[in-house]
Parts: sequence; C-alpha cells; structure tokens
Amino acid sequence: MTGTPASSVLFPRVAFIGIGLIGSSLARAMRQHGLVGTIACHTSSDGSMEHAKELGVVDEVYRSAAEAVRGADLVVLAVPIGANAACAEAMASGLKPGAIVTDVGSVKQSVIRDVSPFLPDSVAFVPGHPLAGTEHSGPDAGFAELFISRWCILTPPPGTPEAAVARVRALWEAVGSKVDVMEPGHHDRVLAITSHLPHLIAYTIVGTADDLASDAKQEVIKYSASGFRDFTRIAASDPTMWRDIFLNNREAVLEIVQRFTEDLTALQRAIRWGEGEVLFDLFTRTRAIRRGIIDQGQAYGSGIAPPPVPEKVE
Amino acid sequence: MTGTPASSVLFPRVAFIGIGLIGSSLARAMRQHGLVGTIACHTSSDGSMEHAKELGVVDEVYRSAAEAVRGADLVVLAVPIGANAACAEAMASGLKPGAIVTDVGSVKQSVIRDVSPFLPDSVAFVPGHPLAGTEHSGPDAGFAELFISRWCILTPPPGTPEAAVARVRALWEAVGSKVDVMEPGHHDRVLAITSHLPHLIAYTIVGTADDLASDAKQEVIKYSASGFRDFTRIAASDPTMWRDIFLNNREAVLEIVQRFTEDLTALQRAIRWGEGEVLFDLFTRTRAIRRGIIDQGQAYGSGIAPPPVPEKVE
Ligand SMILES: NC(=O)c1ccc[n+]([C@@H]2O[C@H](COP(=O)([O-])OP(=O)(O)OC[C@H]3O[C@@H](n4cnc5c(N)ncnc54)[C@H](OP(=O)(O)O)[C@@H]3O)[C@@H](O)[C@H]2O)c1
Ligand SMILES: NC(=O)c1ccc[n+]([C@@H]2O[C@H](COP(=O)([O-])OP(=O)(O)OC[C@H]3O[C@@H](n4cnc5c(N)ncnc54)[C@H](OP(=O)(O)O)[C@@H]3O)[C@@H](O)[C@H]2O)c1
Repeated sequence: MTGTPASSVLFPRVAFIGIGLIGSSLARAMRQHGLVGTIACHTSSDGSMEHAKELGVVDEVYRSAAEAVRGADLVVLAVPIGANAACAEAMASGLKPGAIVTDVGSVKQSVIRDVSPFLPDSVAFVPGHPLAGTEHSGPDAGFAELFISRWCILTPPPGTPEAAVARVRALWEAVGSKVDVMEPGHHDRVLAITSHLPHLIAYTIVGTADDLASDAKQEVIKYSASGFRDFTRIAASDPTMWRDIFLNNREAVLEIVQRFTEDLTALQRAIRWGEGEVLFDLFTRTRAIRRGIIDQGQAYGSGIAPPPVPEKVE
Repeated sequence: MTGTPASSVLFPRVAFIGIGLIGSSLARAMRQHGLVGTIACHTSSDGSMEHAKELGVVDEVYRSAAEAVRGADLVVLAVPIGANAACAEAMASGLKPGAIVTDVGSVKQSVIRDVSPFLPDSVAFVPGHPLAGTEHSGPDAGFAELFISRWCILTPPPGTPEAAVARVRALWEAVGSKVDVMEPGHHDRVLAITSHLPHLIAYTIVGTADDLASDAKQEVIKYSASGFRDFTRIAASDPTMWRDIFLNNREAVLEIVQRFTEDLTALQRAIRWGEGEVLFDLFTRTRAIRRGIIDQGQAYGSGIAPPPVPEKVE
C-alpha cells in the first residue's frame, strides 16, 4: 500500500492464510498503523478472498497457498485450527528463507504439533493468540481496533530465534495489544478455564433449552432474561472454530469440565438440602474475581460496549 | 408529589417495603410518569430508607411496616424473597380494605405461599415479576428506564379480582413494560431455565476458578477472555437475593440442573472420543435460539449497551 510512512513498516510483504474476523482485523490494523507494505492472501474459497480484496483489506489474492506466501516476510495463519496442518503443508514450498510464520489460533500445543513439521529450518515459527474476538465471523466482521488493550500471548517452541519473537511482539504492540510469552501447554490450560469451558457451558445450556418441547422453547426465547440471553450470545459463536478448539484442547478441557461438574454437584446438593450458607458463601466469594477483572480494565470485550454508569462491585 | 397531572395518577398513595434496585426503579418510573401521589417506604435498616428519601425516591419513611402501608392504595413488596413472609406478617395490620398488594420477586409459588396467609380478605394480592434487572443492588442502582420494553409477568392466584389484576397491569404498562399473566408454577419452571440455571452455572464456574491455586487464579483474572468475563458479571449478582431464589425454587432448579448435567456429560463424551460432528451439530443448532432472541428485540439487557454494529447471526 502506498502512502504509509516507510520508517514504520515492520514487514514489507505479509501473507494471510485465512482472512476472517481475526485475519481481517489484523490486516486492517497493520494498514492503519502503516506496519505493512503489501498484503497477499489465500483462503479456501475464491469468493471470500475476492471479497476481502473488494473491501480493500488485502492487495493480492492467490488460489495457491504456496503462491500467496512467496516473498512474504511474515505469514499469518488465521484459519480454524483444524485447517492448520493442511495449510502449512500447502504453503511450505513457497516460504522464503528468513520468513517468520505466526498464527492466531486459540489452542497452541496442537498448532505447534500440526505446523512445525512442515516448516523448513530457514523459517522461524512464532505461534500467537490474541485474546480478542467477537461471536461473528468473516472479513466483514473484522475491525482495526479489535486488539487495543487486549492481551496477545506468544508461545514460541524451544529454539525459536529471539529476534523473530521480538518482531512479532513489536507487531502486536503496534496494533495496541499487551504481549506476554508463555509455555504452550500452560497457555492451553489457562484458556481451557477462561474461554473454552465457558463456551462449552454456554453451548450446553442453550442446547438444553433447544431440546425443550416447542411451546416451552418459544417461551424461553420470549422471556429470555439476563443470564440466558448472555449465554445465547456466546453460544452463537462459529461452530467450526469451536469444534476444532474442543477437539484440539481435549485434555485440558476435560480436566476442567470434571472440576466444574464436581462443583456443580456440590451446589446441587446444597440446594436440595436447603443449605443457604453454602450458597451465600460461594455467591460472596465469586464477587472478588469480578472486582479483579474490573480493576485490570478487562471487564468488557471489544464487541460489547460497557454500561453508561461505571460498574462497581462492593 | 405535586406537579403531576392528576388524571394519570393510578394510585394516590403507594407504599414500598424494600427500596433497592427494583423498588427504587419502580418508584422512580412511577414518579416520572405521574402515576403516584405519595410514596411511603419501609426497609429493615434506617440508613437505607433515609438514603432513599434523600435521593428523592420516596416521600415518607417508617420504622414499622404496618405504619408504612397505612392508607396505601398499592403496596409493593420489593425485598429478597426470603424476607417476604416476615414483611407480610409485619405489615398486615396496617393494610386498608380495598388495597392491592403486589411484589416483584423472582420466584412466584413461594411468594404466594409466604404472603397470602397474612393478608386479610379485603385486600387483593397480585404477584408480579419484572424480567428486568442488573447485577447491582440498592437504591442508588435503580433507574426509571429499567422496565422499558421488558416483560412483567403477573401470577394472580385463583380468585384474585380481575379489577385488581387490571390495575397492576396498567401500572407496568405505564412504566413501559409488556405484561403477561401466567400460572405461578409455570412461571417458576420457565424462569428456572432462562434465569436461575444460568446464574447457578455462572456462580459455579467462577467458583471453580476461585478454587485454583493463587498463581493460576491471578492468571485467570489477567487473561479473562470473552466467555469467562461475561460469567463473572453474572456471578457478581447479589448473594442474598440469589440464595433465596435457589432455596425457594428448589424443585424446578434441580430438575433443569439434572437435564443440563446429562447434556454436558454427552458433550464431554463427544470431546473425549473426538466426535466432531456431534459438537458441530449442537453448535449450529444453538444459533437459532440467539436469532429468535434478536428477532424479539430482547438481545440486550437494560444494564448493557448493545454493540455499535447491529448483531447478525447467520
Ligand atoms: N473468533 C474469535 O473470537 C477468535 C479469537 C482469537 C483467536 N481466534 C482464532 O483465529 C482463527 C480464525 O478465526 P476467525 O474467527 O478469524 O475465523 P473466520 O472468521 O471463520 O475466518 C476463517 C478464515 O479461514 C479461511 N479458511 C478456512 N479453512 C481454510 C482452509 N482450509 N484453507 C485456507 N483458508 C481457510 C476462511 O476462508 P473461506 O471462507 O474461504 O474458507 C476464512 O477466511 C481460529 O484459529 C481461531 O481459533 C478466534
Ligand atoms: N436484581 C434483579 O435483577 C431483580 C430482577 C427482578 C426481580 N428481582 C426481585 O426483586 C426483589 C428485590 O431485589 P433488588 O435487586 O431490588 O434487591 P436490593 O437492591 O438488594 O434491595 C432489597 C431491599 O429490600 C430491603 N430489605 C431487605 N430485607 C428486608 C426486610 N427483612 N424488611 C424490610 N426490608 C428489607 C432492603 O433494605 P435494607 O438495606 O434496609 O435491608 C432493600 O431496600 C427480590 O425479591 C428479587 O428476587 C430482582
């Protein structure tokens, strides 16, 4: 792209494999901040990459992943994580020596397992995960501000050159994110509780409602109150993305589901036996966590506007 | 209050027992729309009712519930539902013949069980539940617009005079609500799924996180992503109110928790055995419910602003 100050260009040529919510948001943000020269792109369907070009999000589109990445200084894998292995294999022959490959997938051990084997030694792999998103998909859903004030977690496997990690860090910081480096397995365990379990629960409860007889289901929709309504928003997230997350973070998710189920069983028992203090104590303890999140300025996502009056938890 | 057009006054004198989030919101809305003459109030602590008077939400405060309701045309019970029986007993001797008693509690069978026995035959009882709220408490948290476009469900027991139901309906409609009449047990089963189960689940998952070792807990707060963050908001709701709800809607809640647990177990199994289609099918089905809620204009609560771009679910 012309007109961006050359001094701030971090990567003259960037290739995106996948240009949906996350890919197109990053591409928009890179352009906005003048971090990139030319953006090339490949996706699985012609229609969607042509559309991204029409939107002005990318400059060039290629039917072959290997063609798309040719000459790129940075390659961003931004596809559902189940597609990572195939994309890595398809693009490998086009990668230029010295290129950096990164990704944005929500699970990190599986990405390293799926992508690393296909990459030549001359290329550095710096896996990443921006903790930012909405329940929408596709290039139209993206926006340049998505990553502002959000964390991005990088999980470079042992032996990754420090200089490559530093350049990917600089990219995320330039688009407004805070960056941390973490061991991939640790990332997957933390995300299992902060993101994967909540989504599983939301899908379950909305599914439970969907299984009700037709009349009852209509009433649940009609009278959907706070709580359920919020769960339906989460449970409207992309099915492919979430299927892949659960299949690829199996152990960590099953472990935390197990704990959750034990805790729910204990509460169920307290309700059955009328143990009001058990309920009251838990309901008081949980407020401290909310307070912590508000204090860290992470209380509202990029997709939801905060309430007009600042939130307080006593 | 002076200055309101007399023609629109529905109840010349109204007494609130309890003036927290819901009570003070209703009092504010009644004033704003000129539906009331004088508002009297009683709560358990002097400080809180004096504060409501300072805020201008009520005109007169009384240390005795019987004194507060004396001469009132309408009495609104707006206390945690565990306090209903004691409040009904305490106020009964002050009720004037022909008065209407209503409430705003989140469970309806228990309110009828707890309150009806204390009411003289000369008084009509029209239990109600506005499906509106936030996770905040107390008179400062209330606002007149809380009920606009929200449902209010009335659950008059058999034999309640039609005229009394009509007047309470007129009140809620005048403050912006849509009103439905429902059998109390049916109300409790619907709310168990749309509100009580989601809150129980949110409390559980935040509790599960709170039980983690201190380091891990700090990380969960720090990296709290979409999903968990939303659950913490729900799990910051008032502990007394929610303890009372679970203790008083025990059967319906336990029944729906049981279904939910079965459904979660099935998903857990699908993850363990890598059954991607089971996950994908459920995650696709759940989107239809969200679409239904958006179509009915109930997608966002009074406490959360909708996102800048209208939400679409394909
Ligand atoms: N959404 C979130 O909230 C969020 C947050 C953080 C991280 N992530 C991660 O970001 C990644 C992308 O998610 P997203 O929300 O951006 O998804 P999305 O909006 O659905 O976009 C996915 C993109 O990948 C392309 N694609 C799919 N399969 C492909 C294949 N086999 N070969 C080439 N391109 C393919 C799609 O193009 P076609 O339409 O042409 O197939 C589309 O451009 C996922 O790994 C997810 O875990 C998501
Ligand atoms: N919050 C929601 O989202 C929501 C939504 C729909 C319905 N509801 C229902 O509305 C009712 C009130 O909830 P809220 O959110 O308004 O609660 P809140 O903000 O905590 O206010 C409760 C009020 O009740 C008073 N109170 C408590 N115990 C009392 C007693 N023994 N005698 C007299 N007054 C007493 C409190 O005064 P003191 O401080 O002096 O004790 C306070 O004024 C509950 O039954 C709840 O189920 C709540």
